[in-house]
Amino acid sequence: MPDHDAASTSARLFGGVFSRGDVATGDAAWLQALLDAEAGLARALERAGLAPPGAGAAVTGAAVAADLPADDLAEIARASDLTGNPVPGLARVLSRRVPDFAAPAVHRGATSQDIMDTAAMLLARQATRVIRRDLLAAAAATARLAQSHRGTLMIGRTLLQQAVPVTFGLVAAGWLAGLDGAVAGLDAVAEDRLAVQFGGAAGTLASLGADGPVVAALLASELGLAAPPLPWHTERLRVIDVAVAMARVTAALGKIARDVTLLAQAEVGEVSEGVAGTPAGPVRRGGSSAMPNKANPVASVAILGCSRQVPGLLATLVASAEQEHQRAAGAWHAEWQPFSDLLRLAGSAAAWGADLLGGLDVHPARMAANLSAAAGLPLAERVTSLLAHSLGRPAAHDLVAGAAGRAAGAGLPLRDVLLTIPQVEQAGLSAQQVDAALDPAGYLGAASDFIDAALAAHHQRGADGRLDASGHARAERGE
Amino acid sequence: MPDHDAASTSARLFGGVFSRGDVATGDAAWLQALLDAEAGLARALERAGLAPPGAGAAVTGAAVAADLPADDLAEIARASDLTGNPVPGLARVLSRRVPDFAAPAVHRGATSQDIMDTAAMLLARQATRVIRRDLLAAAAATARLAQSHRGTLMIGRTLLQQAVPVTFGLVAAGWLAGLDGAVAGLDAVAEDRLAVQFGGAAGTLASLGADGPVVAALLASELGLAAPPLPWHTERLRVIDVAVAMARVTAALGKIARDVTLLAQAEVGEVSEGVAGTPAGPVRRGGSSAMPNKANPVASVAILGCSRQVPGLLATLVASAEQEHQRAAGAWHAEWQPFSDLLRLAGSAAAWGADLLGGLDVHPARMAANLSAAAGLPLAERVTSLLAHSLGRPAAHDLVAGAAGRAAGAGLPLRDVLLTIPQVEQAGLSAQQVDAALDPAGYLGAASDFIDAALAAHHQRGADGRLDASGHARAERGE
Amino acid sequence: MPDHDAASTSARLFGGVFSRGDVATGDAAWLQALLDAEAGLARALERAGLAPPGAGAAVTGAAVAADLPADDLAEIARASDLTGNPVPGLARVLSRRVPDFAAPAVHRGATSQDIMDTAAMLLARQATRVIRRDLLAAAAATARLAQSHRGTLMIGRTLLQQAVPVTFGLVAAGWLAGLDGAVAGLDAVAEDRLAVQFGGAAGTLASLGADGPVVAALLASELGLAAPPLPWHTERLRVIDVAVAMARVTAALGKIARDVTLLAQAEVGEVSEGVAGTPAGPVRRGGSSAMPNKANPVASVAILGCSRQVPGLLATLVASAEQEHQRAAGAWHAEWQPFSDLLRLAGSAAAWGADLLGGLDVHPARMAANLSAAAGLPLAERVTSLLAHSLGRPAAHDLVAGAAGRAAGAGLPLRDVLLTIPQVEQAGLSAQQVDAALDPAGYLGAASDFIDAALAAHHQRGADGRLDASGHARAERGE
Amino acid sequence: MPDHDAASTSARLFGGVFSRGDVATGDAAWLQALLDAEAGLARALERAGLAPPGAGAAVTGAAVAADLPADDLAEIARASDLTGNPVPGLARVLSRRVPDFAAPAVHRGATSQDIMDTAAMLLARQATRVIRRDLLAAAAATARLAQSHRGTLMIGRTLLQQAVPVTFGLVAAGWLAGLDGAVAGLDAVAEDRLAVQFGGAAGTLASLGADGPVVAALLASELGLAAPPLPWHTERLRVIDVAVAMARVTAALGKIARDVTLLAQAEVGEVSEGVAGTPAGPVRRGGSSAMPNKANPVASVAILGCSRQVPGLLATLVASAEQEHQRAAGAWHAEWQPFSDLLRLAGSAAAWGADLLGGLDVHPARMAANLSAAAGLPLAERVTSLLAHSLGRPAAHDLVAGAAGRAAGAGLPLRDVLLTIPQVEQAGLSAQQVDAALDPAGYLGAASDFIDAALAAHHQRGADGRLDASGHARAERGE
Repeated sequence: MPDHDAASTSARLFGGVFSRGDVATGDAAWLQALLDAEAGLARALERAGLAPPGAGAAVTGAAVAADLPADDLAEIARASDLTGNPVPGLARVLSRRVPDFAAPAVHRGATSQDIMDTAAMLLARQATRVIRRDLLAAAAATARLAQSHRGTLMIGRTLLQQAVPVTFGLVAAGWLAGLDGAVAGLDAVAEDRLAVQFGGAAGTLASLGADGPVVAALLASELGLAAPPLPWHTERLRVIDVAVAMARVTAALGKIARDVTLLAQAEVGEVSEGVAGTPAGPVRRGGSSAMPNKANPVASVAILGCSRQVPGLLATLVASAEQEHQRAAGAWHAEWQPFSDLLRLAGSAAAWGADLLGGLDVHPARMAANLSAAAGLPLAERVTSLLAHSLGRPAAHDLVAGAAGRAAGAGLPLRDVLLTIPQVEQAGLSAQQVDAALDPAGYLGAASDFIDAALAAHHQRGADGRLDASGHARAERGE
Repeated sequence: MPDHDAASTSARLFGGVFSRGDVATGDAAWLQALLDAEAGLARALERAGLAPPGAGAAVTGAAVAADLPADDLAEIARASDLTGNPVPGLARVLSRRVPDFAAPAVHRGATSQDIMDTAAMLLARQATRVIRRDLLAAAAATARLAQSHRGTLMIGRTLLQQAVPVTFGLVAAGWLAGLDGAVAGLDAVAEDRLAVQFGGAAGTLASLGADGPVVAALLASELGLAAPPLPWHTERLRVIDVAVAMARVTAALGKIARDVTLLAQAEVGEVSEGVAGTPAGPVRRGGSSAMPNKANPVASVAILGCSRQVPGLLATLVASAEQEHQRAAGAWHAEWQPFSDLLRLAGSAAAWGADLLGGLDVHPARMAANLSAAAGLPLAERVTSLLAHSLGRPAAHDLVAGAAGRAAGAGLPLRDVLLTIPQVEQAGLSAQQVDAALDPAGYLGAASDFIDAALAAHHQRGADGRLDASGHARAERGE
Repeated sequence: MPDHDAASTSARLFGGVFSRGDVATGDAAWLQALLDAEAGLARALERAGLAPPGAGAAVTGAAVAADLPADDLAEIARASDLTGNPVPGLARVLSRRVPDFAAPAVHRGATSQDIMDTAAMLLARQATRVIRRDLLAAAAATARLAQSHRGTLMIGRTLLQQAVPVTFGLVAAGWLAGLDGAVAGLDAVAEDRLAVQFGGAAGTLASLGADGPVVAALLASELGLAAPPLPWHTERLRVIDVAVAMARVTAALGKIARDVTLLAQAEVGEVSEGVAGTPAGPVRRGGSSAMPNKANPVASVAILGCSRQVPGLLATLVASAEQEHQRAAGAWHAEWQPFSDLLRLAGSAAAWGADLLGGLDVHPARMAANLSAAAGLPLAERVTSLLAHSLGRPAAHDLVAGAAGRAAGAGLPLRDVLLTIPQVEQAGLSAQQVDAALDPAGYLGAASDFIDAALAAHHQRGADGRLDASGHARAERGE
Repeated sequence: MPDHDAASTSARLFGGVFSRGDVATGDAAWLQALLDAEAGLARALERAGLAPPGAGAAVTGAAVAADLPADDLAEIARASDLTGNPVPGLARVLSRRVPDFAAPAVHRGATSQDIMDTAAMLLARQATRVIRRDLLAAAAATARLAQSHRGTLMIGRTLLQQAVPVTFGLVAAGWLAGLDGAVAGLDAVAEDRLAVQFGGAAGTLASLGADGPVVAALLASELGLAAPPLPWHTERLRVIDVAVAMARVTAALGKIARDVTLLAQAEVGEVSEGVAGTPAGPVRRGGSSAMPNKANPVASVAILGCSRQVPGLLATLVASAEQEHQRAAGAWHAEWQPFSDLLRLAGSAAAWGADLLGGLDVHPARMAANLSAAAGLPLAERVTSLLAHSLGRPAAHDLVAGAAGRAAGAGLPLRDVLLTIPQVEQAGLSAQQVDAALDPAGYLGAASDFIDAALAAHHQRGADGRLDASGHARAERGE
């Protein structure tokens, strides 16, 4: 008899990669969230006068996942096999565990989907809070990198080829913009889109007569979730919005992780992953028992291992929005696992991200060396501009292109080749002027302004990461 | 020599399904958008004092796609083959087409990605406007359905099985909530996320010296797009946000289309697609030359044909957000087609949706007949509640379940079976009370309240669909 | 301290839906498969003379997941956190658990990916065997339906509208072709594509000197997997092929499940899900505690809940095939979970499918009644053909279209309307001939031939489901 | 009035990237394929005696897309808007264009889906042939690289970090295995899975009476496609199989393109894209007008731009396999564009791939230099093995790990550090032995054997790329 899922063993083989951090989406977390939704309903019914005093507290007291005995768990699993979801069994078990006076308050007015969807929203709330915290930590570290490496020169790279000079501060500022954008997405969802589901069998709450809307509002109040205008059993934009917020988190982190893996290549060597803080002290990750030369960028690799699973899971949820009538036959069920997986993977990526950015080692000397090794070629564009004044742009371009080709071919600095060309002198360019033109520090344009803008947008979010009244959206619109 | 793409024929085989309405994303639209971006840049440079007076107007006058001769188009295509994108060829062609004094203003400071990304945002803006208009038309029609069918009884269906009664007005209210949510998503993107791209070769605008940020701001002003804090060459959350707005449109419409196809089944017959208005007058769509009995729900099928392509395209864009360094090697290129496709498919679905909902025929008599044919079974839950007062809930449930089973088995109305059961009379339930309990009009709970709430949320958007200050988000939070 | 994954609770909330049947992909299954790979390697080394006699047996004896104490499991989990995969910790634990003489045989020559990939292939083999068994059971039941309902008339439906008559036997034959195609896909993968991975640190097996290929071949022999020409660390077509085989399983089953949910609608009523066999006897699934009228098609819904998760997971694996150099930084890691999920979901869908098709209740009387209710309209095409002989096709078509329209409008049988039309009699069509033309049993074309062809293709697979030498592929090519 | 699709302009902006090569999937190609399907049907009907002599030739003669006047094309487009697919309009136009005697042979017995699906298969056949040719060219070039660089040493890289030595020949052998696997997938589909579709309105071919199967077989014969046992209107495994074959092509090429972009980084410099052959002679792609230092790897980038669009498109087709009843309402329609796109993108990637691999410049000197710069660290594992004989493995590992750390820290060769350590000499290791151990050419294990195996598997495919009787599958199974 094989095991059917992870629950049957206490091994935890992949959790360190894909379930790092504090987002909780396993069966235990789901079970508690389902119980929390049922308990919130009982309290709401009591407040509405539809359950006797004390019923809410009684149900809440019994709705503790950790207290459920194995028999009850087994009963829930068996009922799930027959009904296709865990709620009917759960409601029956919970009813049995409360005093008789409170039993009628269990699950009253609700359908299974009410409890499942509300529980999903509770899980999403916990996840957004945890991920937000980890992203803010990552963003704070990234803002420090942007500030402190404002003047750290490095070569910019486009299509994986060397282009013109940038600074590492500007690279970090770009990362920061992504992280801030991810936080903003979490905030938008947390404020408006995490709503209770409460509609009963077919969205009318008929079994509660005229009391349905009151109970729905009280349920929202009890659970601290939004109260939607009407049930959303088959209007699934909220599910998409949560999923997208997670995808934006992993998109922002995936870009950073990709850059780190590339910058950490031995032949580039411009950054490396730092040591990991553990309860037992700092530990170097990524070592190899066989190859002492290896220091794998484990955090970045783990982020990519998470982020690359996200597009497919998001697609499943978007496709699942096509839900029939008052409750879907399959499309709703297809949401549960990808929804959980997205919370978990975004959470793991964010936890890795905080660690990665908090400990990133930057190597300005290697950056300078790589830039220097380019021997002036990244500044060819600038020399062209100078020569264009006297030669005209086309002739200047041809002259410099030829010089660059000879320099690259012969392994000579562009400077040396340029100074052998009569037209350069004829154009009035002295050796000093050529040297100045080839100084990458002089060809950074608005890099520092852009760092300032990214930092300003970041700091408009207060200590808690929320927007000031004069915040980000306004800055974005150029006001 | 085969043709390579749609451009080589004037056949338009699938456009009616997948490219309906006014969203423009074909090569002609792209070409004009690229030219608009270049023209805006020339005007911005002039305003910044970096190009001579009149240069902006001169470039703008030359930047008309329809004026480009075939030779120029061929040159752009050839250059695209060698460089991997159409901008280098386009910039060269455009430079040649302007007076000499204006030529240096063409493409100055820009990299190909600046022009491509900005053009994509211009296409997205046109698309969001068109789609918004069509969605508002669909939503207005849906609001009328919700209002006018507030009392139209029908059976609710869960997991494609009959459940309890609802009203068609409530069904329409649910559709409306989705459409309004889709409009809100478009508005959020249009306000904050459609931004110019302008960073030059590697995001520093180095070739403009200290003038880069000024030119970037003026470019945003010229094109009416947002000015981002810094270039977003490899920070792609904006691309994701546009794509998601489109996916939310097709998600909302796909749910409606699925319901219509199901409700329009011959055996259900509760709605049918109406006649299509065409310039030549009304035409019935969906006929079959062979089968006079067919009236295919073409609009709904077309919507589903569009919406089901969306999850995969969205996944591609989310996956593409992992972009290397200062410009991605492949991930950026992989965005262009799915981005266009999403705009086009959402636009086509919205155009079909306005048509579908504007002309939907609702058949209350069939709804009543189907409900009646259920012979009281959908109200079994309610009878149970009445009996529970005297019998207790478990006994009541067993009694009604047994009666329902016998009724279904014998093809008898539930009423007739119930009235033969002694306990029913003993419980004090008269035949009139049983009849009342089995009247679906009396078991609608909050259906009408929910319709009101959906309509209120809808009307909080003004005539132009925008939120009032006291709008949707607040309602959502239950304030 | 939240739980991080399913392993921390013994609740099994969703397993009945998504993990039904005997496919094993949980952490326990992975752990044993990893140990099996290590044990196979030790035996291969011994056979190659690279480990002392008895080393293979010693390692094999220690490689029992169920015997690992909690401390060892915790050590593996901790090491996984630091190295990004569970193998380094596992190899260390396993080395410690064998006698000293055998320890050098543990993991010798291997890299983590060798063990992970080989374990994945072992899991895939178990899954393909189990799924194949369940699909064969489903196919056998479907073949019986095709045979026994060869003459069971029903209305065919296109675009969810009534079309022309078919038989339920033909519907089942179409389902059967899909199931047989899914089995063929499993067989193709099982025979050719489940291969060991063994390449060492970078695919050269350098640490084994000249002995690498011999050990690789012996490892394949020990594990009963194919021996690839060279390591496939970053050539991932095998992973895609396994994933596709799973997607073909759920595609075939999803189509069937969709049909069943549609045919089981109350208003259609042509099939219903039968009772479920359980160890405790037959149990009716899909009941509702609140609504005695409900009998949800739980098996079909569960299949759809599984199948709709598959496209996104497959996309992740296809995207992950872009793997860098000799081992990917993230793309490999991103495979592990979707690979497991695909095996599990296909397995669950197949288990549900065997149950669904083994117990499907078919209702010929409802099929006949629905066909009869169409009142001749599905045969309009045929009457047109008869009239075309004397009237010409265009006139005949117009005449019948008009008659059909009047019949539908007035709720009359097409027959009655036709017999009032003078041209029908003038065309020499008697009432008997009209009746004959409107008899659906006479308008089935090749339905029975197609059933025969599907059954013949099915039975060319022998008792074990494998192709005869004269099998399917040949039939397909029309030889 | 905006344009709605690419057809309205003759600009071809992106074709060079995404539509390179000879695969034809534009509207013109579709139109001709639809006409070919109709013409084949007319010929089949004539051969079956169901159409008069000459009807087949007459229809075939009229079925030339290039001959259709603009009015007819417009009529097809209009009809497509009303019916949701281009076939009804096409059939009407075609009927009108043939002599009266032949008109009844147009579209007889067929439904729109028969013509659409058959046309799709004809497009797939053309695409598989073209792609196969281009892949074989790419594979031949890759086989030459594997052979000629059998001894070209380079550093192997795992997780984007340096690992142990490999050869470039081995890298190419791995690429070759992927290309050969892609060709094998195309062949399997071309032989068995490209089948005609012919089932009439609902899959019974009722309008052809008893003649349906004969006509179906003759249609297959006329078009050179397989004859399926029964119509596959809603059994879509064939569509998946074609799509998967395309995805395997881009997966194999994407891996290669990724490697090339990484190896072509300036800091690595081990390969570069060669010059492109054009009709006008060799042209260097990837130049930049602004930056003379740039030589972008355009072919690799274009391949990635294609390949990364594929997973999402494949997911759409797999999801679309859930098709209702006898013809799907939306899921079928959702197939058309992604199916075309997959053929086109795989074709473009293959064309780029042939070009890339045919012209790849390999730089052994840079490979040697990069390996040398690692200063012995990649061989640390090997030194450990030698020392383990006398010191035991743990002590040996610690000693070498320490030495490697000191070497890396001080920038010294590992050799120099090792020779200062007394235990090394005490272990009997001479300087010569240390030098020998650190020679990468001596630590290549089975690299050359694996190249031989890949080349042997490749050459078992004959001149035409097909398997010998003793071919690949057998080799795979280790026989």
